[in-house]
Amino acid sequence: MEIDSYFSQRRTVRSFTDAEVSDSDIRAMLEAAMHAPTTGNMQLYSVIITRDDEKKKALWPAHFSQPAAVGAKVLLTFCADFNRFVKWCEQSGAVPGFDNFQSFFSAVLDTTIFAQQFVTIAERNGLGTCYLGTTTYNAPDIARVLELPVRVVPVTTVALGVPDGDAVQSPRLPVDAVMHVEKYNDYTREDIASVYAPLESREDSRGFIAENGKQTLAQVFTDVRYPKGNNEVFSKIYRDFIESQCFEV
Amino acid sequence: MEIDSYFSQRRTVRSFTDAEVSDSDIRAMLEAAMHAPTTGNMQLYSVIITRDDEKKKALWPAHFSQPAAVGAKVLLTFCADFNRFVKWCEQSGAVPGFDNFQSFFSAVLDTTIFAQQFVTIAERNGLGTCYLGTTTYNAPDIARVLELPVRVVPVTTVALGVPDGDAVQSPRLPVDAVMHVEKYNDYTREDIASVYAPLESREDSRGFIAENGKQTLAQVFTDVRYPKGNNEVFSKIYRDFIESQCFEV
Repeated sequence: MEIDSYFSQRRTVRSFTDAEVSDSDIRAMLEAAMHAPTTGNMQLYSVIITRDDEKKKALWPAHFSQPAAVGAKVLLTFCADFNRFVKWCEQSGAVPGFDNFQSFFSAVLDTTIFAQQFVTIAERNGLGTCYLGTTTYNAPDIARVLELPVRVVPVTTVALGVPDGDAVQSPRLPVDAVMHVEKYNDYTREDIASVYAPLESREDSRGFIAENGKQTLAQVFTDVRYPKGNNEVFSKIYRDFIESQCFEV
Repeated sequence: MEIDSYFSQRRTVRSFTDAEVSDSDIRAMLEAAMHAPTTGNMQLYSVIITRDDEKKKALWPAHFSQPAAVGAKVLLTFCADFNRFVKWCEQSGAVPGFDNFQSFFSAVLDTTIFAQQFVTIAERNGLGTCYLGTTTYNAPDIARVLELPVRVVPVTTVALGVPDGDAVQSPRLPVDAVMHVEKYNDYTREDIASVYAPLESREDSRGFIAENGKQTLAQVFTDVRYPKGNNEVFSKIYRDFIESQCFEV
């Protein structure tokens, strides 16, 4: 089997040139991406395209003004969307029962698969993309700027543009670290040490440890990047927002 | 912009020949798919490969014995996984704070993006795939068969094999039905009617309505395929399971 080298060579792009990405190109890429798999062919998603400077500036704080958000020519906010489907049910004499966790979860999978197919298509056409994980942190702010109705919840945002220079490829764990055969083979202490050793020994990892005054790379994740307190605050904000959008969590 | 025709021509495959897909091919495809984007480069996922007949038979009831599950040579269960990462933190002098909804959600996005990249790679190499949405319905049963430890939650399953014949492509909504510019443009009654009209007028749709004794296609979705009662039962099962796996929902 000969796997297209694009897949193992792709990299996330966080720095973009001033070149535009046309509306017609975005439209064509979304149209192709819509053929990605979707739950029961319900297509439980919408995407909001932000190109206008005022709208972008209104979104930036929600994305903590990270460079990829500020530098991108276009932001695409991918949302789990039951609004369209429920409206269709209601005007078709059907009684919808989708205000629950399982339905929301289906919409999240649909949305993520659609977003990833869009990312692949964009990258294959020479564009650069970066997911903004901040979308789930400040979903209420994003929803206000984009005027999302009930039953629509932001899931992820893709920053899009023409790459400025060559982005560096991120390292990955060895495939055996994530692949299990027939049953989950839980990790011994030695397995874990071996799986993460290459990442820990990288020069950039040692830099992250030093500049944050930490002893280990794992502490950079737990104390600096994803501290428990933040995770819990943003969990409550997102869960409350999902419930306010009519999905019982 | 010239978009590779694969993307707009792809179709889901639910019927497979007896031909095998080798372990080395699966491994190579997973290795390439691991370069898909992942939250903070944490790779919060695992995949369990089921090829053994006894294991497959044990999984089938959890997937309601749907033909794609039973006919596939291999099932790949993609799981949100914080077990590996938390073990690494704990043996690295770091105090993890990931037992919450936001962290679980990040892992779900990572897992779904990884699964979709695998699907694209498999399809590009002539293989057929079908997502099994039943994975979130009967997650506790799947977890028992695959011996998943805490902090590991099944998110989706990909049935994989060599396509048997030509699969039919599913119709999709027009791109303007899911694409919004600068703000969410909520749908009028006329918009909804127009968006769903092509789907409703298809011969197969009229067949679904007739064979289920319904008046509209939307009723097939609400009364037959995704009834409220089922959605609520499976919501509770999945949410309770996620909590038992150490993520506060």
